[in-house]
Amino acid sequence: MTRLPRSKQILRADIAMRHSDEKWMAEAIKVGRQARVWSAPNPAVGCVIVRDDALLAAGFTHPTGQQHAEIHALSQIDDAVGATAYVTLEPCSHTGHTGPCVDALIGAGIVRVVLSCVDPDPRVAGKGVAKLESAGIDVTTGVLEAQAHDELKGFFLRLSRGWGRVTVKMAISADGRSAMASGESQWITGAAARADVQAWRAESDVILTGSGTVMADDCALTLRQCENRLSEADWQRALAKPTARAVVDSSATITHDAKVVSGDTPTFLFVRSDAQASTDMPSSVSYIPLDAQEKGVDLKAVFKLLGDKGANEILVEAGPTLVGALQQADLIDRWLIYMAPTMLGADARPAHAAVFKKLSDAPRYSVTGHELIGDDLRIIMRAAQDS
Amino acid sequence: MTRLPRSKQILRADIAMRHSDEKWMAEAIKVGRQARVWSAPNPAVGCVIVRDDALLAAGFTHPTGQQHAEIHALSQIDDAVGATAYVTLEPCSHTGHTGPCVDALIGAGIVRVVLSCVDPDPRVAGKGVAKLESAGIDVTTGVLEAQAHDELKGFFLRLSRGWGRVTVKMAISADGRSAMASGESQWITGAAARADVQAWRAESDVILTGSGTVMADDCALTLRQCENRLSEADWQRALAKPTARAVVDSSATITHDAKVVSGDTPTFLFVRSDAQASTDMPSSVSYIPLDAQEKGVDLKAVFKLLGDKGANEILVEAGPTLVGALQQADLIDRWLIYMAPTMLGADARPAHAAVFKKLSDAPRYSVTGHELIGDDLRIIMRAAQDS
Repeated sequence: MTRLPRSKQILRADIAMRHSDEKWMAEAIKVGRQARVWSAPNPAVGCVIVRDDALLAAGFTHPTGQQHAEIHALSQIDDAVGATAYVTLEPCSHTGHTGPCVDALIGAGIVRVVLSCVDPDPRVAGKGVAKLESAGIDVTTGVLEAQAHDELKGFFLRLSRGWGRVTVKMAISADGRSAMASGESQWITGAAARADVQAWRAESDVILTGSGTVMADDCALTLRQCENRLSEADWQRALAKPTARAVVDSSATITHDAKVVSGDTPTFLFVRSDAQASTDMPSSVSYIPLDAQEKGVDLKAVFKLLGDKGANEILVEAGPTLVGALQQADLIDRWLIYMAPTMLGADARPAHAAVFKKLSDAPRYSVTGHELIGDDLRIIMRAAQDS
Repeated sequence: MTRLPRSKQILRADIAMRHSDEKWMAEAIKVGRQARVWSAPNPAVGCVIVRDDALLAAGFTHPTGQQHAEIHALSQIDDAVGATAYVTLEPCSHTGHTGPCVDALIGAGIVRVVLSCVDPDPRVAGKGVAKLESAGIDVTTGVLEAQAHDELKGFFLRLSRGWGRVTVKMAISADGRSAMASGESQWITGAAARADVQAWRAESDVILTGSGTVMADDCALTLRQCENRLSEADWQRALAKPTARAVVDSSATITHDAKVVSGDTPTFLFVRSDAQASTDMPSSVSYIPLDAQEKGVDLKAVFKLLGDKGANEILVEAGPTLVGALQQADLIDRWLIYMAPTMLGADARPAHAAVFKKLSDAPRYSVTGHELIGDDLRIIMRAAQDS
């Protein structure tokens, strides 16, 4: 009888323990989702503390400088002695804005730590596991690793390549059009789809658009709390740390009275270094200069600068020009498409401006989600680097 | 306590019987689907014979001149005395190609008949029920009527308006394009989607295209048995009575060597009455003259003529011109869209050639199905008249 090689951890665990580990890790993943709306630049980690197969506490990452998931969970209980901690990412062993989580776990008397992913952050990367083990704690890694990795995708992408996951939202008809030839486009998709977009905005770290869209729509790109898959508590967290806004505004055409710079939401305006920036912008607005390219701006540089700001999840809500440029530069990781059940016609405006010479040049994605949101079909497609 | 008015039938039936009736009618509907591939012009009816909550026999409509569903079911058993027959459509009481089904049910000793829909055919329309009741048979109608009606939609549409259901197949990218600007389009969708199309072809009564598509692709539009949701038995029935082909060929440009006129599948060529028809076509090919319109042909007339031929389900597989003309004339009942997870670009060919001036002119549909077929997303959208 041949057997596939198995990791030391899995050989040690019996099947019942593996099932139990997966059950509690699934819970930790679920809990971690609550952190999405405010954890950046930190990953949205979840942690559950379990003893005798009973949940003692659940925690998730808080904003920078506040509790990590493990600390949040431990803070809810007086006694964690002999308990197991399930964490979706390796606990930190270094002192950043907060003290190291591994010390807190050791100090609380945790006897076993179950992890999904090892942290790719070079300040952690295996050191957390080593420190736990040297303190005599039993450590199991790799439980539901693929799922947890997928939940933290933007964070992992940012650490490995310098910028977070780029999701492009598009509201189109079944014939792939974003507006009538006249420009008329309100509303192609329904109220439920528009409310759903607000959840994606809340769970993103920055919303990126182009100055053309700002000029045409005078959009605010702020969060609007509405009925969707986020809970009231999610919304409270989201509004406590609102998603930043960013505009590719190479010629610095946006003025202080544009809605996109109103309020106190952090806003980044990417302008060519030779453009004349406005001097009367609110203090929440930062100009970020870009080297002038022959044509437009270097969009990868924009993403890297947003990566430097700690954005794990970048949501693009832009017009055909910017979306087309991203598509042409193969910078789109994920599509968030709301397809309205209508046909706008062959002369209506295209979804994006990218063109490809041959069918083999056309980018391929994988459909990873399709769901009716009200009357519209929400389709999620992911590029290879996002799967 | 107020109650909504209930029909006499439902008041008579207790809840248990209603549940049992729905269970067996669901089975009859399922059985009836086997007839789709060959029953036209007759509706694809299903019938199950049940006694003491046990299935005795199941039948479905056979091709014209052969057994109807009730006769097919009864032919499988020696003794149906005291049994209940569940039929998805009112049994016929007239003698057409076959003897009346009501007489067969009465003769077999059936004591109860449960129906979903009353037949809109004026030769039946309530007469079947009346004849059964006058023979002392207990008749219940309206069980799962909406579902059964939906299954027989094409038949009902044909009887009420003169032509069957028009389903337009479209293989497009996520940006709504059917081919590259160069015309390159093989293959946008994958093998699984192409195999799925064969099931829809088999379940349609005629496949309609335009001469432009025939010229460009030299398509045969024949059935190709392949792995899909149809069973081997379904395929055998489908191939025994292959789906007809029809081409809108106003100027009579199709020649005898085109694949679309090859083989012995019935083929209809719609030509303008003043066009010069070819004289060396195979005998399976019929020319159907149409009054010349100012622009092209009267597509509603084409559908009506196909309705006269008994087509309940018309599948359109055509290029942007014909599809656009159908869309512009609001003649599309249902869209069968295979969306490949790719973007072909803003200069790629549109899905259809229809144009609309205002957003309020754009046709609205309902998404009634969305499913991954291989890597492609199959989206079904239905117009109001098809819901």
